[in-house]
Amino acid sequence: MGMFAEIITIGDELLTGNTVDSNSAFIAQKLTEKGYWVRRITTVGDDVEEIKTVVREVLSREPEVLVIAGGLGPTHDDVTMLAVARALNLELELREDILKRIEEFYLELYKKGFVDDPKINEARKKMAYIPRGVEILNNTVGAAPGAFLIYKNTKIFVLPGMPREMKAMFENEVSPKLGKGKFIQRKLLAEITDESKLAPLLVEALNRFNIKIHSSPKGFGKYIGIILFGESEDEIERARRFIEERGIKFEEV
Amino acid sequence: MGMFAEIITIGDELLTGNTVDSNSAFIAQKLTEKGYWVRRITTVGDDVEEIKTVVREVLSREPEVLVIAGGLGPTHDDVTMLAVARALNLELELREDILKRIEEFYLELYKKGFVDDPKINEARKKMAYIPRGVEILNNTVGAAPGAFLIYKNTKIFVLPGMPREMKAMFENEVSPKLGKGKFIQRKLLAEITDESKLAPLLVEALNRFNIKIHSSPKGFGKYIGIILFGESEDEIERARRFIEERGIKFEEV
Repeated sequence: MGMFAEIITIGDELLTGNTVDSNSAFIAQKLTEKGYWVRRITTVGDDVEEIKTVVREVLSREPEVLVIAGGLGPTHDDVTMLAVARALNLELELREDILKRIEEFYLELYKKGFVDDPKINEARKKMAYIPRGVEILNNTVGAAPGAFLIYKNTKIFVLPGMPREMKAMFENEVSPKLGKGKFIQRKLLAEITDESKLAPLLVEALNRFNIKIHSSPKGFGKYIGIILFGESEDEIERARRFIEERGIKFEEV
Repeated sequence: MGMFAEIITIGDELLTGNTVDSNSAFIAQKLTEKGYWVRRITTVGDDVEEIKTVVREVLSREPEVLVIAGGLGPTHDDVTMLAVARALNLELELREDILKRIEEFYLELYKKGFVDDPKINEARKKMAYIPRGVEILNNTVGAAPGAFLIYKNTKIFVLPGMPREMKAMFENEVSPKLGKGKFIQRKLLAEITDESKLAPLLVEALNRFNIKIHSSPKGFGKYIGIILFGESEDEIERARRFIEERGIKFEEV
């Protein structure tokens, strides 16, 4: 049901548990709202071979969309653009227009006293090496640009890992390329003290209607959280009534 | 460097972005502390075929440890035990001892007024079906038990998805089975206003010493976060001195 998408998040800090991966949740939510069913999220470290391998694995499953986030910065462990280029057999090329933008960016930071040196160095220059032939995604918050390309039938977006940079780039550059599809989520609270009694009813609803359902226990309190997913508001409403008519009282969240 | 581990987290709520996957960060941190290098984290939905597929993919990479979290509860979308059994060609068997424990658990909840019916029903009974021959991991917080088994050279742990249940089970049941290995993390703050100038130094340190390094910009402020990972306190200390002698001032975090 719906178009299918995958997410790859990149960073050793995720694999050591030093950072909670909130980026994938943000991206997943946005993709879901746009009508995509996220089938898998994969997190790997800042390692060219690992990233290359997982990108190829994801592409072999032919998702409509692949969003990759993390590893675009100036440090030694930011290797995502190189790895994506290797995965797709593309060459990295120094983009003079990007280099100029990065120079301007650091000059601004220097004027504001945020960096002690405005000059371009190898580390900063690295961010201007982009796979040949991709479309640049502007970074309105940081220095490193993102990339967009289409491989076979998969739209691939490469985004930075710093949340405020990634979010801005997603809203400004990615969303407009995802089309108008909509996947509706209806969040409800079921007034019942034992979720297990709901199970058979939910299974029946799943079989009857073109929807997906997620239920989550709220401890063992009076309510159970239910989320109905579907492409049609009517279908969701029919499923909701079907369950209610069988004795489950819902409240909108 | 170090033994290698993978994590699988399971739940549609993670793929829709309704829940941020804090479980994988907790598990990754614990595994790292125990001396494991987490190479990959994979998140899939509550789908038997998807889970079965990803479990087999992970096992084909032969990690020393695989931790699976989520999908052990009573609801229609809790299918992890079934999927793990399928992946390993094991049969599910009804464990009378587990069933008895689940009965007692719900009777307790009923006495406390948390559920309106103490009786076992199909949904609750489902939690007592466990792959044949596995070792049970006790759930001291919730109803659903976890499972431990060894496949070839991989220790597989199957844990619940509710964080408080997963964390208790990890501490009580998983940690003791992970051995005494230790992977040391030293968190430092580098006093420097431009992380990109640090990059060549860090690369040199990586080449000279048996360590891993992660650096993360703290905005564009005065400090940059550095984490040195290694198996030997001395090796980390040597690397730290090497970098400091080249003009980087560190503060312990």
